[in-house]
Amino acid sequence: MPRVNESYANLKASYLFAEIKRRTAAFREAHPGAAVISLGIGDVTLPLPPAVIRALQDAVGEMARAETFKGYGPYVGYDFLRAEIAAHDFAARVVKVDVDEIFVSDGGKSDSANLQEIFATECVVALMDPVYPVYADSNVIAGRSGPADESGRYAGFVYLPCTAKNGFQPALPDRRVDLIYLCYPNNPTGAVMTREALRRWIDYARANEATILYDAAYEAYIRDPAIPHSIYEVEGAREVAIECRSFSKNAGFTGMRLAYTVVPREARGRAAGGETVSLNTLWLRRTSTKSNGPPYIVQKAAAAVYTPDGQAEVRALIDRYMDNARIIRDGLAAAGLTVYGGANAPYIWLRTPPGLSSWEFFE
Amino acid sequence: MPRVNESYANLKASYLFAEIKRRTAAFREAHPGAAVISLGIGDVTLPLPPAVIRALQDAVGEMARAETFKGYGPYVGYDFLRAEIAAHDFAARVVKVDVDEIFVSDGGKSDSANLQEIFATECVVALMDPVYPVYADSNVIAGRSGPADESGRYAGFVYLPCTAKNGFQPALPDRRVDLIYLCYPNNPTGAVMTREALRRWIDYARANEATILYDAAYEAYIRDPAIPHSIYEVEGAREVAIECRSFSKNAGFTGMRLAYTVVPREARGRAAGGETVSLNTLWLRRTSTKSNGPPYIVQKAAAAVYTPDGQAEVRALIDRYMDNARIIRDGLAAAGLTVYGGANAPYIWLRTPPGLSSWEFFE
Repeated sequence: MPRVNESYANLKASYLFAEIKRRTAAFREAHPGAAVISLGIGDVTLPLPPAVIRALQDAVGEMARAETFKGYGPYVGYDFLRAEIAAHDFAARVVKVDVDEIFVSDGGKSDSANLQEIFATECVVALMDPVYPVYADSNVIAGRSGPADESGRYAGFVYLPCTAKNGFQPALPDRRVDLIYLCYPNNPTGAVMTREALRRWIDYARANEATILYDAAYEAYIRDPAIPHSIYEVEGAREVAIECRSFSKNAGFTGMRLAYTVVPREARGRAAGGETVSLNTLWLRRTSTKSNGPPYIVQKAAAAVYTPDGQAEVRALIDRYMDNARIIRDGLAAAGLTVYGGANAPYIWLRTPPGLSSWEFFE
Repeated sequence: MPRVNESYANLKASYLFAEIKRRTAAFREAHPGAAVISLGIGDVTLPLPPAVIRALQDAVGEMARAETFKGYGPYVGYDFLRAEIAAHDFAARVVKVDVDEIFVSDGGKSDSANLQEIFATECVVALMDPVYPVYADSNVIAGRSGPADESGRYAGFVYLPCTAKNGFQPALPDRRVDLIYLCYPNNPTGAVMTREALRRWIDYARANEATILYDAAYEAYIRDPAIPHSIYEVEGAREVAIECRSFSKNAGFTGMRLAYTVVPREARGRAAGGETVSLNTLWLRRTSTKSNGPPYIVQKAAAAVYTPDGQAEVRALIDRYMDNARIIRDGLAAAGLTVYGGANAPYIWLRTPPGLSSWEFFE
């Protein structure tokens, strides 16, 4: 039989959210009458905005007629969508991101899992702790971790603890790292990063020739006007940062699957011979080799998010989810628990009561 | 700067179909009046079947109402679609494939690019020659090829020449290989593989502990009733074969992005310690770690392909494309060229006139 990728054996027993699903299903089966409010995976519950629905209906109509039917699209996404992204998500915040730096994809999960593929196996990865499991697991599978210890941590990774004590702002790594995964507004702690803190990370990456993989999937939840929505709002980021964005949590696209990644032309890596290599070129090559882009109708739907109606409707969705966050936060606090987050992010992070592990608390 | 994945440097200058697009665009710009019939990438041109359009409209309606809205779906695809696939694509041909052996994805391109990830880097890959570039390029990027020689072939791959002389039926490899990519009906030669030929490959894989990655994306074009549509129609395949299927070329989903891969429970690989590992388990883990499945609305659209209306409409589409193939084949033959394919596949393969390379003929 062919030899398998041994690194899979280093993964924990199951993907976190698959395990949450499994335990929840088991509970529901054992307690058929119980009403379960899922606080596990951060999914959306409200319908798609009307502007998005109209765009979808129009796009489905186009697919029904030979004159307007669309076959294979561009590997990197349609320009009509990339142009809206460049204008609304960046130019409107006085950030210059060009259309050919935007790669439209089928999800923030796949982008954050796949980005590591353009880097060498020997790259040292720094991860926030706690961490969105995809950053860790994709690098475990790629062979960058080695086996986990008893606490579930991997010797090959550099962990950046985010605790209430440091305000969920990790300290700079104490050893050389190549790839730094940062996610702000943070999943799962709900923390945000100030411009000054971002600048420290960018300075670090520039001085140490590291690349930051910045996940801004929750930027739409930022309410404090001083907090950057994009890492490119901070000078010097274009050389050292790749940014991931998603339509999942602003426009409710978790079941629609659409996201994008920005890889600036200035971002570079280094080949064995010492010469520099464009990360934009590598990611373009990876994307065109392995993907045909997301569905046309979904890209049309995403473009509608940027219309005036779409923008207003998305704001209303976010207000509603932030209201949910407030209810959860207040309820947990009233129950005597210490809670964080929920101010510039939909996430609530809580301290389990003394003596209870996270899984015990979950059960 | 972080070290990059050096294997990208081993790829040819550009992805084949990206290069075709580039040259075609350059020609169109230089000849604005010319009508270009694209014979490059095999795309569809006819609108989606009416049954699919109705299902899409219904699904969009569901996404517009909170009671029926769908957020994150199953990583591996919805059971309503997997059940239709198991019943219509397999049980109807007296092949037993269970729902948990079916992994729904966003495309045959990504599936055939990603499958190699569950295998070890040292696996030796056998490729038909000519080959759908994705099989080769994904393994180049994974570090299994080494650099290419002047002819564009990689020392690390075992090539299986498919020529008019051998009826486009490759001989068994003359050295040990681990992974064998077979595609029938074949892209690009248009050849099919008989039951007896498939049995030889399965026997070979069983005797040599190899795994066959069988791409049956064009099975709907088979007209000869003696030709298997699935490799699992041949006994013994479940232990040694993974099969990829797509909705692109039957139902016109190239712009919709939907496909699936079958990984039977009996398919195994081997770990370094000698113990066997379930490939189904590995692929499930890969899928749940890196994907959230394709969009709900696209999966609903795909399920409509299996309705009686959908089946009749898909047959009409295929008849039309086969008629196109006949026209192209007859036209090229009338122009004095030797042509193959087009009988059980939409592809036409031709011999360029003496002294003309493929690219010269293209130009």
